[in-house]
Amino acid sequence: MTQAVGRARAHTNIALIKYWGKRDKDLFLPMNSSLSLTLDAFYTDTKVVFDDNLTEDRFSLNGKLQSEKEISKISRFLDLFREYKDESRFARVESLNFVPTAAGLASSASAFAALALATATALELELSPEELSTFARRGSGSSTRSLFGGFVEWDKGTCSADSMARPVDDASWDIGMIILAVNTGQKKIASRVGMEHTVATSSFYQAWVDTAAEDLENIKKAIALRDFETLGKITEHNGMKMHATTLSANPPFTYFSAKSLEAQEAVRTIREELGISAYMTMDAGPNVKVLCRQSDMERLVRALQDYLPAEKIIPSLPGKDAFVLTEEEWQASLATFTGEPR
Amino acid sequence: MTQAVGRARAHTNIALIKYWGKRDKDLFLPMNSSLSLTLDAFYTDTKVVFDDNLTEDRFSLNGKLQSEKEISKISRFLDLFREYKDESRFARVESLNFVPTAAGLASSASAFAALALATATALELELSPEELSTFARRGSGSSTRSLFGGFVEWDKGTCSADSMARPVDDASWDIGMIILAVNTGQKKIASRVGMEHTVATSSFYQAWVDTAAEDLENIKKAIALRDFETLGKITEHNGMKMHATTLSANPPFTYFSAKSLEAQEAVRTIREELGISAYMTMDAGPNVKVLCRQSDMERLVRALQDYLPAEKIIPSLPGKDAFVLTEEEWQASLATFTGEPR
Repeated sequence: MTQAVGRARAHTNIALIKYWGKRDKDLFLPMNSSLSLTLDAFYTDTKVVFDDNLTEDRFSLNGKLQSEKEISKISRFLDLFREYKDESRFARVESLNFVPTAAGLASSASAFAALALATATALELELSPEELSTFARRGSGSSTRSLFGGFVEWDKGTCSADSMARPVDDASWDIGMIILAVNTGQKKIASRVGMEHTVATSSFYQAWVDTAAEDLENIKKAIALRDFETLGKITEHNGMKMHATTLSANPPFTYFSAKSLEAQEAVRTIREELGISAYMTMDAGPNVKVLCRQSDMERLVRALQDYLPAEKIIPSLPGKDAFVLTEEEWQASLATFTGEPR
Repeated sequence: MTQAVGRARAHTNIALIKYWGKRDKDLFLPMNSSLSLTLDAFYTDTKVVFDDNLTEDRFSLNGKLQSEKEISKISRFLDLFREYKDESRFARVESLNFVPTAAGLASSASAFAALALATATALELELSPEELSTFARRGSGSSTRSLFGGFVEWDKGTCSADSMARPVDDASWDIGMIILAVNTGQKKIASRVGMEHTVATSSFYQAWVDTAAEDLENIKKAIALRDFETLGKITEHNGMKMHATTLSANPPFTYFSAKSLEAQEAVRTIREELGISAYMTMDAGPNVKVLCRQSDMERLVRALQDYLPAEKIIPSLPGKDAFVLTEEEWQASLATFTGEPR
């Protein structure tokens, strides 16, 4: 019996310049380059074992065996690595999502980044993290950015080989983010479906693509200068612009819920009346994410609790690069898994 | 003592293809042509008396004398007529807004249309309603459309003389509208301020102007065919697209409140689950207006009451052309004025 084992942790990330629209659906090539902040509070731990005794791939998430449909998505992803390395063994994949369900955050970014790194480790692939991100991309576009910590750019590239993530800045300065988890159980429009409909029908979409490129250049300058105000303003502008494309689709739709609007109003009021710098962004769901200074975080969390007493409010510092876990670290992770952030 | 007296009634209107952005702020020339439905339930009655015993203009609204600031706006408006007719007398203006404050509807559309018609009547101007609408426009852009009943187009025109309203269809078929008055006392961004900021900063604005022209052509075809579904879909698409321009402004802003989103969700749910055709539009405020078939209105009002028990729900049929009132009708109006729709 031969086995090849790899284990890895990757953190989730929140886009400040949004990924919104694919130019190639099969290869997950995006219409525009994006930039994110990796978050320390939410991550996925994954162990992969390639084993020649297995007769099919297996996949368990949070200790539960997954359905055929979930497994086939993982198998297709593993095939990319098997083809690259001429590997024929099936694999057993175990994943733990330290992303609370109530937070309503997409776990696919950290999930496919962790799986990519664990698989590359098991198969001893000699890939840079940038190269590895082109594999991760095929599982979930945003997972490219979860291979790195801090501020990360996903360059849209010219083809599959160069559409990759790159670290921009480790965010080890006065940066934090607060998740306002206003999950309301509303019927969700998957981001894949929302972006396809928007690309196909919004007359504003081309201007989105054009100006996202400008926003990216400007936010990178703000990061280089550690200019938090400009960083925040570009983040809020770009995020709302993405949501403007959904309202301009035909028929129109929105990821905003009534509770999202309450959260937005709270952030705006706190910014205007308490003078705390805080800038919002939202993704393909009702939650509101607040970019802030780490040094303002305690005061901001208290103010948000006052305005939004019923909502789950989760602060996070910037996260680090994805990294390989030892078997001891994996066992420790298994032992402490609760599904809630620690 | 010489007097010249005129009295008129004009109804409010709700744009289905929105007026959003001026190309000339002084002349109120719009960036795009628009189209509206005049509503029977909300109107303004106005009496104007030019009197050579007066030493200044006077203005009372709903029985209350108005401030200098309000009077000066009315005076500048009357000056347009005085210059046209070489008239030197000051005027006493009395207006009654049969638009409930709680409905949060702009009364300026019906107000300036009624004042324009009352003034033209008093001064015996020989103007067609279309020509009169170019005067009304100088008080409030949307008031052009309140000179006519039913579906009305405001052609953006090439200059002040031809930027005028024209009747499109009297809407004497299966058409109605329901106002969901979700006024929340939120700080309001005046439509003038919102549109100026949007024109100046939104990268999506040019596409708004370009596609509003297409939407207008298509909605006129749908009206000619009495095709309610297409009419409704274009209305909802165009309205949401206008709101998309505010989200894409820099900094972004929105007229949506949490209660607007609740109302939107209710309309969407009723449409999908009860199968009642109902299409939304919103203006520069939190209220949601629902275009529907008159024959569905009772059932739709009951369904909306179930979903939105706390909100004021006001149905209206299409309104008629603005018209001249007799002194007896004016007295009757004064006697019954409560500020609430009858």
